[in-house]
Amino acid sequence: MAVYTEVSDTELEAFVAEYDIGEVVACKGIAEGVENSNYLLQTDDGNYILTLYERRVAREDLPFFLGLMEHLASRDFPCPTPVHGRDGKALRDLCGRPAALTSFLQGMWPRRVTPAHCHALGNAAARFHVAAEGFELSRANSLGPGEWRRLFDATRERAEEIHVGLSAILESEFNYLDKIWPTDLPSGIIHADLFPDNVFFRHDQLSGVIDFYFACAGPFAYELAICLNAWCFEPDNSFNITKAHNLIRGYETVRALQPAEMAALPTLARGSAMRFLLTRLYDLLNHRAGALVRPKDPLEYLAKLRFHQSVSGPEAYGLR
Amino acid sequence: MAVYTEVSDTELEAFVAEYDIGEVVACKGIAEGVENSNYLLQTDDGNYILTLYERRVAREDLPFFLGLMEHLASRDFPCPTPVHGRDGKALRDLCGRPAALTSFLQGMWPRRVTPAHCHALGNAAARFHVAAEGFELSRANSLGPGEWRRLFDATRERAEEIHVGLSAILESEFNYLDKIWPTDLPSGIIHADLFPDNVFFRHDQLSGVIDFYFACAGPFAYELAICLNAWCFEPDNSFNITKAHNLIRGYETVRALQPAEMAALPTLARGSAMRFLLTRLYDLLNHRAGALVRPKDPLEYLAKLRFHQSVSGPEAYGLR
Repeated sequence: MAVYTEVSDTELEAFVAEYDIGEVVACKGIAEGVENSNYLLQTDDGNYILTLYERRVAREDLPFFLGLMEHLASRDFPCPTPVHGRDGKALRDLCGRPAALTSFLQGMWPRRVTPAHCHALGNAAARFHVAAEGFELSRANSLGPGEWRRLFDATRERAEEIHVGLSAILESEFNYLDKIWPTDLPSGIIHADLFPDNVFFRHDQLSGVIDFYFACAGPFAYELAICLNAWCFEPDNSFNITKAHNLIRGYETVRALQPAEMAALPTLARGSAMRFLLTRLYDLLNHRAGALVRPKDPLEYLAKLRFHQSVSGPEAYGLR
Repeated sequence: MAVYTEVSDTELEAFVAEYDIGEVVACKGIAEGVENSNYLLQTDDGNYILTLYERRVAREDLPFFLGLMEHLASRDFPCPTPVHGRDGKALRDLCGRPAALTSFLQGMWPRRVTPAHCHALGNAAARFHVAAEGFELSRANSLGPGEWRRLFDATRERAEEIHVGLSAILESEFNYLDKIWPTDLPSGIIHADLFPDNVFFRHDQLSGVIDFYFACAGPFAYELAICLNAWCFEPDNSFNITKAHNLIRGYETVRALQPAEMAALPTLARGSAMRFLLTRLYDLLNHRAGALVRPKDPLEYLAKLRFHQSVSGPEAYGLR
């Protein structure tokens, strides 16, 4: 949950006057999106989401993120659509920050994930990959394998404060992944942050996907590896193979995985666990007292990493 | 900002099914209300606020708070109205907590207070006092003068950590107020927490008052004393007499202050400053790392207390 920037009524009214959406009725900071300030804006015209981009989102990446949402929405992928002002612009400034208005999506994210959710998620991930084709901008993964060494260096000294032996585990995993990381898998634009709180459902149907601020170029199967970690473990960190099977089956209703993608899945799952373990570790070690966001537990991802280290092949994920 | 309890979609759907308000469209945790978890709930039917009462609100007080809102709304005071379920109940349980649905108020709270806001606020405070007449329940002020000694005892030892000399200042102020605190002023039910974030405006008109969870029996003029502190100081803690004058003029458009109330205002303002100084001090000293609410600065209220200690009479507040 996060509202880092307080928007005053006068500033908001001036901002909204740039759009053709009626007058402000109400505007409430919402507990959605960890990196930015989000408001649910109600006007005479309807509901919108107002996002103020805080320091962790690079201003130069915003045309990519907003353009991607627009590209996806134009291809019927269920996601927020940026609203353009009368001047044609979708991105302007508010309270000294880049800010954008997007359409409002119905639904709620699932607090208790079911196998049916995983099937719908897999389907949506594949639809995303297909719909993103042809989008003219690109963006490298700022938290991809090439960046893990930097994150590791920034955390290795203090990793032992969190878990004894963690530094050695990371070092060894890092060396392993460095050697076998696949580089020739089918790739395109991936969401790269398809966690349950970014996927909305209504009446058990997937109603939309939000938070495109980690989207980047990458192997399609890496998206599934992220989803395996984020959706297919139970709260006690045990792995639910039915959910994994459903996730992949759902994906393949739209796009068939190639044998090389299947074979790479255990490695990609280890890499994805490594990525979230490292960023959570970094965030925990650099957490400021009084910050509005509670840091997430890195050790959850250590448990997930250990599971993937133990698997013998893609069968472990319910693959045929 | 606060969302302490995560409500799952299935629990929410079962809860909403008890009401005649259509089906859930979306539900988002909002940054409103420090003591409770608040959600903006959208159904086919419209917008509602869903509140889950957390531990700082006593369950036995809830019939008073909800009944008061209903009483006030029935007398055209602009405030949320509790929504009753098909069984007639306005209060039920959700996620193990008492929970209620209320109507949604338009408007935003003023981030930059103007003298015009203060006039509208004074008017609303008086309308609240008049409209609350005849409400059959009552509730003692759990943070009134009778409780300050307990708060003082709980903070005095560590008060010096926050400000050198604070313990002696509080002791001496406490003894002073104890001697001269007025006991025979016109009284009734007061809101007791009319801070800017609890008062909404739309098109420069006051559109509603929220957060009745400190409402209690008390002197009407004590409400104004709380407002003087919360609305009439600038961010640098300088006192704005125009705002104070407007606040009281606005109040008197509805209910004339008696001479005894005017005369008591400096004392009541000192008492109100003492109350918020003590509770902020207590909250700061007992703040848990990782809590979702940033503690407010008690020393802001020390500066306000010092101002009121320095005034010679009610003229200081722009009274005729």
